[in-house]
Amino acid sequence: MGNIFDLKDFSTSKIKSILDMAQFFCDGGITPTFSKKVACNLFFEPSTRTQYSFQVAQEKLGMKTITFSPFSSSLKKNESFYDTVKTFDSFGTDLLVIRHSKNEYYKALDEKISTPIINGGDGTGNHPTQSLLDLLTIQQEFGQLEDLSVVIVGDIAHSRVAHTNFDIMNRVGMHVYTSGPIEYSDSSMNFIPFSQILPECDVVMMLRMQYERHFQHHEFNPVEYNQKYGINHKSIAQMKSAAIIMHPGPVNRSVEILDDFVECKQSRIFKQINNGIFVRMAAIKYVLSGGIDDSFN
Amino acid sequence: MGNIFDLKDFSTSKIKSILDMAQFFCDGGITPTFSKKVACNLFFEPSTRTQYSFQVAQEKLGMKTITFSPFSSSLKKNESFYDTVKTFDSFGTDLLVIRHSKNEYYKALDEKISTPIINGGDGTGNHPTQSLLDLLTIQQEFGQLEDLSVVIVGDIAHSRVAHTNFDIMNRVGMHVYTSGPIEYSDSSMNFIPFSQILPECDVVMMLRMQYERHFQHHEFNPVEYNQKYGINHKSIAQMKSAAIIMHPGPVNRSVEILDDFVECKQSRIFKQINNGIFVRMAAIKYVLSGGIDDSFN
Amino acid sequence: MGNIFDLKDFSTSKIKSILDMAQFFCDGGITPTFSKKVACNLFFEPSTRTQYSFQVAQEKLGMKTITFSPFSSSLKKNESFYDTVKTFDSFGTDLLVIRHSKNEYYKALDEKISTPIINGGDGTGNHPTQSLLDLLTIQQEFGQLEDLSVVIVGDIAHSRVAHTNFDIMNRVGMHVYTSGPIEYSDSSMNFIPFSQILPECDVVMMLRMQYERHFQHHEFNPVEYNQKYGINHKSIAQMKSAAIIMHPGPVNRSVEILDDFVECKQSRIFKQINNGIFVRMAAIKYVLSGGIDDSFN
Repeated sequence: MGNIFDLKDFSTSKIKSILDMAQFFCDGGITPTFSKKVACNLFFEPSTRTQYSFQVAQEKLGMKTITFSPFSSSLKKNESFYDTVKTFDSFGTDLLVIRHSKNEYYKALDEKISTPIINGGDGTGNHPTQSLLDLLTIQQEFGQLEDLSVVIVGDIAHSRVAHTNFDIMNRVGMHVYTSGPIEYSDSSMNFIPFSQILPECDVVMMLRMQYERHFQHHEFNPVEYNQKYGINHKSIAQMKSAAIIMHPGPVNRSVEILDDFVECKQSRIFKQINNGIFVRMAAIKYVLSGGIDDSFN
Repeated sequence: MGNIFDLKDFSTSKIKSILDMAQFFCDGGITPTFSKKVACNLFFEPSTRTQYSFQVAQEKLGMKTITFSPFSSSLKKNESFYDTVKTFDSFGTDLLVIRHSKNEYYKALDEKISTPIINGGDGTGNHPTQSLLDLLTIQQEFGQLEDLSVVIVGDIAHSRVAHTNFDIMNRVGMHVYTSGPIEYSDSSMNFIPFSQILPECDVVMMLRMQYERHFQHHEFNPVEYNQKYGINHKSIAQMKSAAIIMHPGPVNRSVEILDDFVECKQSRIFKQINNGIFVRMAAIKYVLSGGIDDSFN
Repeated sequence: MGNIFDLKDFSTSKIKSILDMAQFFCDGGITPTFSKKVACNLFFEPSTRTQYSFQVAQEKLGMKTITFSPFSSSLKKNESFYDTVKTFDSFGTDLLVIRHSKNEYYKALDEKISTPIINGGDGTGNHPTQSLLDLLTIQQEFGQLEDLSVVIVGDIAHSRVAHTNFDIMNRVGMHVYTSGPIEYSDSSMNFIPFSQILPECDVVMMLRMQYERHFQHHEFNPVEYNQKYGINHKSIAQMKSAAIIMHPGPVNRSVEILDDFVECKQSRIFKQINNGIFVRMAAIKYVLSGGIDDSFN
């Protein structure tokens, strides 16, 4: 089946073929459109860039789209996650894109759902299309992925972006480090002090401090956080001249990145959003082609 | 006008022609598409399967769709139900699908609204497309409707599914019984104890216990309810071997139906959802054809 | 750039060419469709008629549409207005329609956002497409705009409709008066007692009392308001025989207009809503043509 749950299920050569297809779309490439196909976007958590960029990608491919709204659905009558997804599966549409707060929610769906699924983010687990757009952005910048150094900075422990990227970036031959507050670190993920690794990196990837997931940390001090682990005048000066700044968004301005630097010349933050469209078009094309390389290429 | 408010307004021959059209769509039949037409879905109550299956049906017919969201509309400025519908009517689109909590809300709209309307459920009154999909599912299973026995079980008094089905199933020649807790019964609807009628029936149609409509019944005991009026090992064993289980959804798992039996071999619950697409395509085609049999067939 | 922020930026000849295009659509005119184009509707305030009529207009032009839902977006993670709009801009779609409670919100976007924008209403400031549909409705009724007299009645100070209409109606040669409670008046806007000006006017334009913007006025008495400043048997009798009643909606029935008169023969309230579709189609066509008259005509 052509699901995309977790990039760990994909060989690096398959990932590279998806990136090639995304670059083809980025270059204005056209493709037979899927004008008879219907996509359903089921976001059980709030989202702006992932949710709507999937919808734009579907529309650019000619698909019809359905946007599930949890607030006016039968979830209000206590219908379960599984039964909601199974209902959409029973409609017989062509694609489900799902985001849910539960890690690996898709394990309960596999084998039971026949409609192809793309994971739009599961809890603190995976966010495969985010990683693909990160890779595309880096490849466009440097012409390669191999041998580049990247540091992922912030709340590593709770970040699906960090988990997915750490694995796939290592597999494509990048040197991957993580940094940030020690209390949010993961010792298995090449943790290193920020000031030590920053001058070595080609890519500085900031993560969002997810207040909504652990707002109990009353002692959190944004100014101090930015000084220690954020992008500011001092850290910008320490970066390699060709290094780029990335962030999956939404940015907490003045926390991870000082306001003035969000759109600075090193920033690729809005370029990432633009690449999200092309990567999602490629992911959808992959899934609708049944995940078979031959028909995909 | 080609409205569908209440199946009581339709002869059995007209209903059978809608079912034939639905079966045509189910068999992969194609139809001139309505690609210039716009449908507006106005659900003033939460809904998953009805709301989104109307939207999928519209998209499969090539229509454009508008989904009204009560939460971000002028209802927040106290605009009335009538003025909201009249606003959409004034847009000059081609179809309104409406669900509202008020019984027979459409009586205040008839004559005043010129856009064709399909009723997506009114209070405890009618739910015509649900009945049509129930009939289609039964007909597919048994090759006929006449002479089959069905028991509708649960909160009969508050169920629009029960009211609509009781009438139309009798009219197409089925033997229709109702059962469940005596306090939710309707003496005009052939009420009979569950254990007595269960072994006689071809179709066992469970209704959802609508907690959100009468949550004041603190004494409600789900385990006891299931033992007395629900699908469980004992009741499954009492059913005819060829009998099927239906439910309009969402199922309260372990209340109306024990968890393990929701997807058992006798269950047609997700088949019903799938048939909902084809029945709604047929209903829309009927309404857009002005309700005239000649142009419909 | 082809933005529409404020009608003050437009010459009367340009406004008249947009009205001509709207009339062309109203008369059933067709146009090359924008079937590869995607529109994003970003309404940060509740709306029924503006939001959905933009969507209908886009669909009638063949565009794909995206409806941003603030309630399930990253606004829940404190993403700012600017970053939300910049995210949609980065998607690379073809049109943004924006409503926001902040006056002149678009001043912070100009130069930073490359996607064309149509203002769907900013705070108490502007509502350009509402004014265009008002002008179209008046022109259809009287065959001209010049020399007609209009009184705008109600909460002048807080009304974007009043501000935008006062300017443009004067510029196209109408005699424009404002009236209503003195505490909501604006002395720069030709304020005059209602009973004095009413018999002179061709157009009586009622404004909505915006309870949600200043509900602190506990002393507000709807019956008294209607008697003094509203449409009722007495004021209808004082109107010119050919005069028409307009209202941007939603109407507070029995406040600005007695219930029975909302759909009376002088009322063009639902005609205005219908014209909103054609005016928005014309505005979109203008913007997508880059705002250049030559390609527009």
